[in-house]
Amino acid sequence: MPVVKLVLAYDGSRYAGWQVQPNGPSIQAEVERALSALHKAPRRVTAAGRTDAGVHARGQVCSFPEEIPLPLAAYSKGMNALLPEDVAVLGASLEPDGFDARRSARGKRYRYRIESRGTRHPLSRAFAWQIFRPLDPAAMADAARRLTGRRDFAAFQAADCDSHHAVRDLGRLDVLPGGETIEVVAEATAFVKHMVRNLVGTLVEVGLGRRPPAWAEEVLLSLDRKRAGPTAPAHGLTLDEVFY
Amino acid sequence: MPVVKLVLAYDGSRYAGWQVQPNGPSIQAEVERALSALHKAPRRVTAAGRTDAGVHARGQVCSFPEEIPLPLAAYSKGMNALLPEDVAVLGASLEPDGFDARRSARGKRYRYRIESRGTRHPLSRAFAWQIFRPLDPAAMADAARRLTGRRDFAAFQAADCDSHHAVRDLGRLDVLPGGETIEVVAEATAFVKHMVRNLVGTLVEVGLGRRPPAWAEEVLLSLDRKRAGPTAPAHGLTLDEVFY
Repeated sequence: MPVVKLVLAYDGSRYAGWQVQPNGPSIQAEVERALSALHKAPRRVTAAGRTDAGVHARGQVCSFPEEIPLPLAAYSKGMNALLPEDVAVLGASLEPDGFDARRSARGKRYRYRIESRGTRHPLSRAFAWQIFRPLDPAAMADAARRLTGRRDFAAFQAADCDSHHAVRDLGRLDVLPGGETIEVVAEATAFVKHMVRNLVGTLVEVGLGRRPPAWAEEVLLSLDRKRAGPTAPAHGLTLDEVFY
Repeated sequence: MPVVKLVLAYDGSRYAGWQVQPNGPSIQAEVERALSALHKAPRRVTAAGRTDAGVHARGQVCSFPEEIPLPLAAYSKGMNALLPEDVAVLGASLEPDGFDARRSARGKRYRYRIESRGTRHPLSRAFAWQIFRPLDPAAMADAARRLTGRRDFAAFQAADCDSHHAVRDLGRLDVLPGGETIEVVAEATAFVKHMVRNLVGTLVEVGLGRRPPAWAEEVLLSLDRKRAGPTAPAHGLTLDEVFY
């Protein structure tokens, strides 16, 4: 059976996360409502990653098998007419039988935006963690280099993460300085829950000068969640791309 | 009397514009409310530019004379605690007697963001004019070069603009391509009402291939508002900086 693959972008600000849940609106529910309206029958989708409440996406991917798919324009233009303004389909394609947005993914890239200036800034308030003290991006980059590779990320795993283990291959953890803005780009085959936000919280401790860069690796090696920095706020995080 | 100068940033989405007016909330009213609370007495401010409804700022400037100014931190940290989250003071300074945010300004820079892709995009919906067809930035840049200098911009002036004449010195009108995003940067000693939005609307006609680059100069020379392109939507425009 052919599989429909959708690339999605969303502003996660007003959602309780990707996944359908009782305590608030979810992006998944919006997508399934629009798809079901198009097909005039219920449809369920699988997503590459279940983004947390408040997390954004410019390249989330979801998929569902469909015996006789609609013309692809129905999944882009048609969906975009039905979805709320904070969710959109950027592209639609057909994949062979067996494709699954989650299981077929080879990796994902997340982007975390930090801003450092003396005051809050209204224009990026929904898309960046605004920190009112100076950060040292070189120290953050030094710390980040110590965390890449195939490692056990238990120290950066949310307490309620349901993964059996936390060994992941973090191929890239780059700290990109740009004046008042610092972007952290993380690429891995897979992530444990809150991994990027916990890594960013730890890098920021180093950037603020509270800890030396070597401390980040001590945290990693400790496998102890209590030693890592605070979880960075969700609204700075964007799921950038999923690789297949 | 010393003059307090404030540099402001705001997300103009939910405002009827800078200026206090009967038909909706204004940024000026928010700023004056916060200032009056700080001073425990009414305060009125003058701004460098009266931005339209929906227009944003990252460098608006306002000022007011003050016999005995508060410590500057009161105008930054103090104001930011009182202002709504879509308005902020980025900096405060004291200027000599006679300074006025509007009359003392030597020039202003605006930035207009256009995005061109096949679909709408939720993450920039409040800050860019999203156009669902391809644009030719080279043709737009060609047209823009024909519009700079000291010229009569009557063709790009809003019908209800109360300026006596429309001669302005447009020092810079750059079209900066960046993949799916095109930024138009306009710098002038002063602007007539809707000038940047009318210039952008005209450049977009050229970018869409509906008109050749030379047409933009024909519009300028005609002095006829009816010949220009449509007024570009307000939410793509940001007042970037005011020069003194």
